[in-house]
Amino acid sequence: MNACDPVPPWALASRTALMRPSAVRDILKLTQHGGVLSLAGGLPAPEGFPIEALQRASQRLWRHRARSALQYGPSDGVPALREWVADRCGRQGWVVSPEQVLITSGSQQGLDLVGRVLIEPGEPVLLEQPTYLGALQSFAPWAPQAQPWSADAHGPLPTALQPGQRLAYLVPNYQNPTGRCLGTERRKALVAAARASGVPLIEDDPYGGLWYDTPPPPPMASIDPDAVVHLGSWSKVLAPGLRLGWLICPPRQVDSLGRLLVRAREGADLHSSSLSQHLVLQLLEDGFDLDAHLEQVRARYRAQRDAMDAALKRHLPAGWHWTRPEGGMFFWVQGPAGCDTAACLPAAIDAGVAFVPGAAFQVPGTDAVEVGRCMRLSFVTLAPIELDEAVRRLASVLRRAHGG
Amino acid sequence: MNACDPVPPWALASRTALMRPSAVRDILKLTQHGGVLSLAGGLPAPEGFPIEALQRASQRLWRHRARSALQYGPSDGVPALREWVADRCGRQGWVVSPEQVLITSGSQQGLDLVGRVLIEPGEPVLLEQPTYLGALQSFAPWAPQAQPWSADAHGPLPTALQPGQRLAYLVPNYQNPTGRCLGTERRKALVAAARASGVPLIEDDPYGGLWYDTPPPPPMASIDPDAVVHLGSWSKVLAPGLRLGWLICPPRQVDSLGRLLVRAREGADLHSSSLSQHLVLQLLEDGFDLDAHLEQVRARYRAQRDAMDAALKRHLPAGWHWTRPEGGMFFWVQGPAGCDTAACLPAAIDAGVAFVPGAAFQVPGTDAVEVGRCMRLSFVTLAPIELDEAVRRLASVLRRAHGG
Repeated sequence: MNACDPVPPWALASRTALMRPSAVRDILKLTQHGGVLSLAGGLPAPEGFPIEALQRASQRLWRHRARSALQYGPSDGVPALREWVADRCGRQGWVVSPEQVLITSGSQQGLDLVGRVLIEPGEPVLLEQPTYLGALQSFAPWAPQAQPWSADAHGPLPTALQPGQRLAYLVPNYQNPTGRCLGTERRKALVAAARASGVPLIEDDPYGGLWYDTPPPPPMASIDPDAVVHLGSWSKVLAPGLRLGWLICPPRQVDSLGRLLVRAREGADLHSSSLSQHLVLQLLEDGFDLDAHLEQVRARYRAQRDAMDAALKRHLPAGWHWTRPEGGMFFWVQGPAGCDTAACLPAAIDAGVAFVPGAAFQVPGTDAVEVGRCMRLSFVTLAPIELDEAVRRLASVLRRAHGG
Repeated sequence: MNACDPVPPWALASRTALMRPSAVRDILKLTQHGGVLSLAGGLPAPEGFPIEALQRASQRLWRHRARSALQYGPSDGVPALREWVADRCGRQGWVVSPEQVLITSGSQQGLDLVGRVLIEPGEPVLLEQPTYLGALQSFAPWAPQAQPWSADAHGPLPTALQPGQRLAYLVPNYQNPTGRCLGTERRKALVAAARASGVPLIEDDPYGGLWYDTPPPPPMASIDPDAVVHLGSWSKVLAPGLRLGWLICPPRQVDSLGRLLVRAREGADLHSSSLSQHLVLQLLEDGFDLDAHLEQVRARYRAQRDAMDAALKRHLPAGWHWTRPEGGMFFWVQGPAGCDTAACLPAAIDAGVAFVPGAAFQVPGTDAVEVGRCMRLSFVTLAPIELDEAVRRLASVLRRAHGG
């Protein structure tokens, strides 16, 4: 044997068989070439990034805190940033101490850490059907038995929470992919059921600031902080490239679960970029008005949402249905019985439009018929006139495939 | 039951029992208060950060690539940065294509990803004794059976590589904690044994640029790229707060192992900070002379190493031994037979000096007697005059505890 022979394939961990590729990212790769109008990704509109304010904050950062921004830092995050998160929660009447806050690299990493410390291989976790596909990816290496969460018109059912489930995961505000927002009564019932069953409720809330009609009800963690792990993110309200989010640990579990989460974080990647953390901190200390910024982002997205709604009404054939979302980034559009949106995707890309088929969001091992006739359309990346053209292209493909 | 009652403790994943706290980070917390001179951490000297060059690069970044620096990016990293890493490997005569390169959040995350795709619970992995404690933390959640790698005076033995081991992990250049650098012949023998046994060799090389006498031999991955996963880092040569490193996948496994690593990355945290990646890229595109910068860093650390060596000679009692390291950041100091450096640590901190006891680096489940009589002393954080005072304090504690 010499160094020119191929090496026999290395043995892979059996968990790799559970690690599915991300349909969204595969589609994104296809759409980077040529004139495809993408309704697939959840990329925030870059026009909404507060570039000038960040540039000014950056200038001050290099003068006043360069060494901290370049040095190793604590695994739970820069203390002043943890304080800011705790204070911000307090504005909603939800008392959070900085010790409960763990700064993460996006809420995606929060899901990985939660999976690390709570999921036991082969034991059940409860997931909405359909659910955020990034959560499926984050949880997969920890090898849970995924159970679809039964639901009614008001959202996931409290009665589905049962002792023995390692966690129950949901996106209460403007869910990805359905856009659904949970009402106050259902939130209260879910939190009570979580407490009664002893199942940790994982509340993933990247979209709470993106409401277009009225603000969403209070977070479930504010109803009963001891029953919920809450995940938040700067990705949608500031910029995703910073890779910053946060995790709020129940107050009575800071010394147990909280310590384990920080220990898990040390092994994963030590800590989030000090540069990103200090840049956001400098921005906030400079008096950046996040609420005014968010109002601008909402105004932009509200117009895009309305343009998408109008385009769907204008172009889609009969038999396709949707509910205009009250916030977030996505329309969830349902086709006629028996249709399979995944089968339409290649023709759509040929026609110059991309979307994510509903099947990408189904809980593994479940039947995709209901979810498979749906598709997720993002309205935050394209301008209104592009949204109209994208939906026009999409409609012509659907008409050819399914009539109408 | 109401919301004021404590929630019963949540069931934790059994893997959490394997997740040990980091002794180094616990010690760092103790030493943040008061006048403790710390030889414990591996914090690079902030005087060595190229702050002015980064500040200039940052100004250009905000003008020319702000949107990319704030937006979501590819999970395998910004393409131009992957090209730079591949080119840099090529300068050593090691042909690497950008497709082999995965940008990670420090080489620490490279270890987490490698563990994710290669380690099977309960199956053996081979680790140097003593080994980098961050690797112990990264691998722990994947629940391997850790085997100590038998060694002779030239380093870990090639004969220890045996079919069935899921991976063999080592730091060839200026190992953490021992400072040992592997010779060319041992590297070749290890690579040949890895190829013959089919065991993936994980070559972790954060310190290769930090040589003080002569450059280290070529990386093992350059000897047989198909037998080795190579990990590199910007933490020691530029700044750790950026949280940037890289992983080099064997060329023939880009479409198998490489894809799985990227998929693992998506689930972990999507990608590294776009801001950090574009800042480093802007710095490099602006013509920053990394080699000249490294020469300055080396000159600083060389002086600190020599100061530490002199201080050890000046102050340590008889019976304590060390080898002056040819690179890296650490002295590994061995005490008399039967001594236990962990037992000395509280008295040392009381005396105003901190170090990491050898036991922190032992392979779990092995006997700590040999490793436990050692301690790791970092020389890169303190100035030469502080190093002398720190060692003087340390010596007085050791003298009281062990005589001499």
